Amino acid sequence: MNKQWLLAQRPTGLFTPQDFELKEVIIPELTDEQFLVRVIYLSLDPAQRMWAQMDTYLPAVAKGEVMRCLGMGVVIKSRSPAFKEGDVVQGMTGWQTHVITDGRGYSQVPAKSGLPLPVYLGPLGMTGITAYFGLLEVGKPENGETLLVSAAAGAVGSVVCQIGKIKGLRVVGLAGTAEKCRWLKNELGIDEAINYRDANAYAQLKTACPKGIDICFENVGGKSLDMALGLLNVGARVPLCGYISEYASSEPGPGVHNLAALISKRAKIEGFLVLDYVHRSRDALSDLGKWLMDGRLKYNMDINEGFESLPEVINKLFEGKNTGKLLMQISAEPE
Amino acid sequence: MNKQWLLAQRPTGLFTPQDFELKEVIIPELTDEQFLVRVIYLSLDPAQRMWAQMDTYLPAVAKGEVMRCLGMGVVIKSRSPAFKEGDVVQGMTGWQTHVITDGRGYSQVPAKSGLPLPVYLGPLGMTGITAYFGLLEVGKPENGETLLVSAAAGAVGSVVCQIGKIKGLRVVGLAGTAEKCRWLKNELGIDEAINYRDANAYAQLKTACPKGIDICFENVGGKSLDMALGLLNVGARVPLCGYISEYASSEPGPGVHNLAALISKRAKIEGFLVLDYVHRSRDALSDLGKWLMDGRLKYNMDINEGFESLPEVINKLFEGKNTGKLLMQISAEPE
Repeated sequence: MNKQWLLAQRPTGLFTPQDFELKEVIIPELTDEQFLVRVIYLSLDPAQRMWAQMDTYLPAVAKGEVMRCLGMGVVIKSRSPAFKEGDVVQGMTGWQTHVITDGRGYSQVPAKSGLPLPVYLGPLGMTGITAYFGLLEVGKPENGETLLVSAAAGAVGSVVCQIGKIKGLRVVGLAGTAEKCRWLKNELGIDEAINYRDANAYAQLKTACPKGIDICFENVGGKSLDMALGLLNVGARVPLCGYISEYASSEPGPGVHNLAALISKRAKIEGFLVLDYVHRSRDALSDLGKWLMDGRLKYNMDINEGFESLPEVINKLFEGKNTGKLLMQISAEPE
Repeated sequence: MNKQWLLAQRPTGLFTPQDFELKEVIIPELTDEQFLVRVIYLSLDPAQRMWAQMDTYLPAVAKGEVMRCLGMGVVIKSRSPAFKEGDVVQGMTGWQTHVITDGRGYSQVPAKSGLPLPVYLGPLGMTGITAYFGLLEVGKPENGETLLVSAAAGAVGSVVCQIGKIKGLRVVGLAGTAEKCRWLKNELGIDEAINYRDANAYAQLKTACPKGIDICFENVGGKSLDMALGLLNVGARVPLCGYISEYASSEPGPGVHNLAALISKRAKIEGFLVLDYVHRSRDALSDLGKWLMDGRLKYNMDINEGFESLPEVINKLFEGKNTGKLLMQISAEPE
């Protein structure tokens, strides 16, 4: 049997169990070219909130459709020439325990690399590729510049911070707890980490960026972006990766007031999507893999269990409760 | 005697007469290299509100200093080899009837060109150069694209609209009165003009941009920008020229809420300053001059009189009461 979470209604604030319907369906027979995947890990990402709510760069998940997400699993039956039994694969599995696919959008994971499998959904997956191209292609960093990263302890942010250090930047991170700040400073080695919930966060930020901000890698938007705008240097770049301050609120979030600063500073805010860089992921993965191997790229995985708890667990993203990549493990890794 | 308006206090909302002090001072003797200008026209621009209030790309006007502005006048006495009596010149004259200068930042106006002198503070001055480079260099228009212009009946906006038409764009303008909209459509020949004060302005805008917005030339910010963000196309550019919605309010203006749209649309907002393009103004003026001569570039001048009324007249900019370039004439043109 295949257990699935179907979207039942469009979420308005945080996800609720009522937004989904849990269903069990019989797994049909394979036709030619198809293979069956037993899903192991599901990747939980802020974008899923948007996909559930509205048409964006992808059409909204339809009501009654399996909730969309990236996942990883093992092929347990195959009539495909390209994917054989035992292959570990990743693709848009959705929130379900099994998938039948013809392989479009799926790729093999180098399961025998010695690296833990979840890494391929984190720093060596879309997460890492997003951080890599967002910082390097949109942010265009130059040695010695100051980089501010919001949601710095998040999956993408924590990789951005470390690439920033590798590229010779002064890196300042914003995160939502003192513990995350300690992790960023002590484990990831960034220059300063600030709890944006502190009353004097802006003053701390100003002190942490004595030469102003050249790049603000923005995952949050709203007040976080407003703070950064106040400290931009001439020619600053703001790669806009996510806008988590708005994703999970039913009300419009706090507006941004300091945009006029872009004029005096000849600065820009530029949105980007990792989809536009996927054809170049080999370059990113080669660098990211090297940095992982030589210990310059560290990561934290927040691996959860319990397929039934998906609607609650994903909210950790919007409540700032995860450190690093948020995953759900729903079956065992192959021996 | 030289009459001057000195800045007395930093404005908090609209300008008030109390923000300035009117003073008469004796005009000193010229030293070598200096010349004396009798000021004829003062250019009133939204940026002056910012200059009076705070440090930006220029230091704030100091209290007790002559209020800063661009102006035009005639040389009535000269000990400069480069500027002779009778020359019509422009430069940062400030709010005063006479200026003594060594000529730095001043240039001669081709007074015998047959064009009215005020044109050199409008479409053939900084105003036109701002419109030209903002649209062409920052907006990077391509034939057939849709251009939205806010404050479209303003000095810069009205030039942007017309360059847009010359470059083969569909041009939609936002303005604050039905009369301005009529002028934009009937006189300047843009495709649609919408009164942003109409309750259904967003619906009108959507209808006027059936293929979405590729370039939004933004002078206003706040709600105006929010409307545009909702209709951006993939790869859209938002040259941010001004942010008049915030300049003249003592409270923070309406925040911008739709920035997340930049992500899905891989779009960017980019601030720019005409100062960065001044060294290339010859290119702009050559095109602008040609378009003026062949009638493809029209303009409206809102020429006011009465030096004493400067603090009130400049507020027309922030109350949306000017159509086209706002000038103050404070003495007669040379015969």
